[in-house]
Amino acid sequence: MSEARTWIEADLIVSGAGELLTCARIGTDPGARSALGMIPGGAVAAREGRIVWVGPGDDLREEVRLLRGGQTVDADGRVVMPCLVECHAHVAYAGDRSDEFQLRVAGASYQEVAAAGGGIMSTVHATRSASSEILRALSRKRLDHFLHFGVTTVETKSGYGLLPDQELRILEVYRDVAAEHPVDVLPTLLAAHVVPLEYLDDPDDYVKMVVKKMIPAAAKHKLARFCDAFCEQGAFTVDQCRRVLEAGADHGLLPKLHADQLSYTGGTEMAAALGAVSVDHLDHVSEAGISALAARDGGKRVPVAVLLPGATFFLGEGGYAPARHLLESGARVALSTDLNPGSSPTANLWLMASMGCSQLHMSAEEVIRAITIEAAAALAVDDEVGSLEVGKKADILIVDETRHAEIPYRYGMNPVWRVFKEGKLVVERDLLGEV
Amino acid sequence: MSEARTWIEADLIVSGAGELLTCARIGTDPGARSALGMIPGGAVAAREGRIVWVGPGDDLREEVRLLRGGQTVDADGRVVMPCLVECHAHVAYAGDRSDEFQLRVAGASYQEVAAAGGGIMSTVHATRSASSEILRALSRKRLDHFLHFGVTTVETKSGYGLLPDQELRILEVYRDVAAEHPVDVLPTLLAAHVVPLEYLDDPDDYVKMVVKKMIPAAAKHKLARFCDAFCEQGAFTVDQCRRVLEAGADHGLLPKLHADQLSYTGGTEMAAALGAVSVDHLDHVSEAGISALAARDGGKRVPVAVLLPGATFFLGEGGYAPARHLLESGARVALSTDLNPGSSPTANLWLMASMGCSQLHMSAEEVIRAITIEAAAALAVDDEVGSLEVGKKADILIVDETRHAEIPYRYGMNPVWRVFKEGKLVVERDLLGEV
Repeated sequence: MSEARTWIEADLIVSGAGELLTCARIGTDPGARSALGMIPGGAVAAREGRIVWVGPGDDLREEVRLLRGGQTVDADGRVVMPCLVECHAHVAYAGDRSDEFQLRVAGASYQEVAAAGGGIMSTVHATRSASSEILRALSRKRLDHFLHFGVTTVETKSGYGLLPDQELRILEVYRDVAAEHPVDVLPTLLAAHVVPLEYLDDPDDYVKMVVKKMIPAAAKHKLARFCDAFCEQGAFTVDQCRRVLEAGADHGLLPKLHADQLSYTGGTEMAAALGAVSVDHLDHVSEAGISALAARDGGKRVPVAVLLPGATFFLGEGGYAPARHLLESGARVALSTDLNPGSSPTANLWLMASMGCSQLHMSAEEVIRAITIEAAAALAVDDEVGSLEVGKKADILIVDETRHAEIPYRYGMNPVWRVFKEGKLVVERDLLGEV
Repeated sequence: MSEARTWIEADLIVSGAGELLTCARIGTDPGARSALGMIPGGAVAAREGRIVWVGPGDDLREEVRLLRGGQTVDADGRVVMPCLVECHAHVAYAGDRSDEFQLRVAGASYQEVAAAGGGIMSTVHATRSASSEILRALSRKRLDHFLHFGVTTVETKSGYGLLPDQELRILEVYRDVAAEHPVDVLPTLLAAHVVPLEYLDDPDDYVKMVVKKMIPAAAKHKLARFCDAFCEQGAFTVDQCRRVLEAGADHGLLPKLHADQLSYTGGTEMAAALGAVSVDHLDHVSEAGISALAARDGGKRVPVAVLLPGATFFLGEGGYAPARHLLESGARVALSTDLNPGSSPTANLWLMASMGCSQLHMSAEEVIRAITIEAAAALAVDDEVGSLEVGKKADILIVDETRHAEIPYRYGMNPVWRVFKEGKLVVERDLLGEV
């Protein structure tokens, strides 16, 4: 080291980690994919909401100086890691479908419930009828839940409006809520969720309206970052979804797709050919679909495979997505709650990590990457969040475990101890407080 | 009503319930089993830790008077119900088995891990090596977790000591922790958990020591209420378990049994013939076993079937217990976390209710009874806790949902808003507090 030191100045230092997991971006070599960038006894420093230093605790005093008024937090042997990223959620909806859940539990299939007037259409009805004020309050509460679980970036979809004014209204709800909430909200236009009752006679006419009217309006008002569609029997065909995603891309909306969830459709292959940022669900993905998601030489971006084991669990019919096959084929795999009222009414992203291990046979390293950096990649924001690297947002999480393997192991629990969003303490959990 | 009213005096009133669920004991008619004793807009009143009144909110002012210094709580439309009962847990252990979990995720079976020196024996080693002070601290933390989920009665087993002094030491840990913790702790001697290394040559000799030495000592010092055994290949035979449970019963310890978990053994039939209070697991129960659990005319007590879907989920090999068949045959069914380091490291009893619906096809009514009154019956304390009835402990829970069907539906979440243990507020949860 030189005599005349150049100090790095910080206004937040988190030190004393048992394990610091950077979850840093790594190459596309499948073998390296499971690395968590672990620094035993690591520390991280931030200034004005950005990470300015990450490294071994022993080097901290030599290299970093705390600014006057700055804060030092001792993790006291806990795991320090990036805040979680939720990459597939349906936040704004009214009503619940707990009664429908009871019908399914008693034997009705998801499709039978939908055919009986339940399913997505019942949520569309409740959501259209709700005031924007109600939708904002419900959305805020759900974002609060996510934050409570250490999630500071949330993708969220429209799709319960299904008419131009209603879809845009939901996106406006997201815009308004995002302006005041600590969580970063990334909105998605999912007008092609199901065919609304008004267009059952002519689904192509609805697709035309999505393409000609809704996508241009959402793009013009900068209300959406992504365009998504539900490619499934009873929803939209591969060809209809292609038209929607291509129109979205023409207007600058990055393509995503709900593909191969309840049956094989070929949606995955189509979305990969289109250069989608992610393809989501994949419970029934084909060999060709898996090949299309394998990382390619030259680093050309392929869609991230977003798996939603909670929906498979909650629907209770088995048939989880082939996570191991995807990983071993070289695909990038993210995990998400799929928060929605029909097939996954939960904000517990940690439980998805546990399901990733116990149901999908992913390793602890793979599931922790899947809810941080891979989820960020599924949103094309892996240059901003999802890992602890210099220059990125100081979204720093301290969990009340000492080793990362314990995180997916303690299933159904919430390990969060402290959450910092862009360097600011936003969640402080001490189990039971004074009791 | 008479002119000269007799008021019921209370020091705690909880009113304004959206739904008040008494979960009251009902007859053995299978058809009536699913009733939750729901009172829309209900209220409950307590005095000196006991329930003195339950009824419709409209009758409250006419019949109940709040004593000076008493407290009124407005549930504001939320669900009010009895606190939960955890009827099968292994609270005192040291170490964790997250590394073993990763081995299993990678393909090793539970039995293979055990054969390789992992499994229960690794926890026995860690627990024997831990000081009693450490075991008390770990037990307190796990009881705190249960309380946080609204559980105020916890059964907990020894079984990681496996030598007389060590087993009694664990029961003493429970006695000491129970003396200071708000949760009611009901201890179980599970010396017959596995055969310890010291006795591998002669398991019958170990059984003899359990019968002659450990059971009498535990009973003499009033350190256990129940006697339990693990009836399984690699653990103890039906005959060995019978000897243990009979000896326990002779000393006043109520019999329980781990039966038919990983394979069929016939343990259920044996335990039922013995008049056990519960038989637990039952993933591989036989038709004869199910028949033995059916409620009988005349109200003679049969064992409660305690199902532990979390262990099945976490082991990841499928094959859930036949809950519907049990219920339809007239068995009483309780649900439990099975909290333990090897097959179910969670205290989230609500998640078991969700699994009861999504994996076991139980109704919302059935799973809510299964974590309250049926769980209390599995501990033979259904005259004291598990329902909101006059004379019972004022263990009152307010959850942040308006309808009971929403409780198992929002899986992986913790719906607790307020917990009263014997009339005293012990948990107050407001999501995210000031954030």
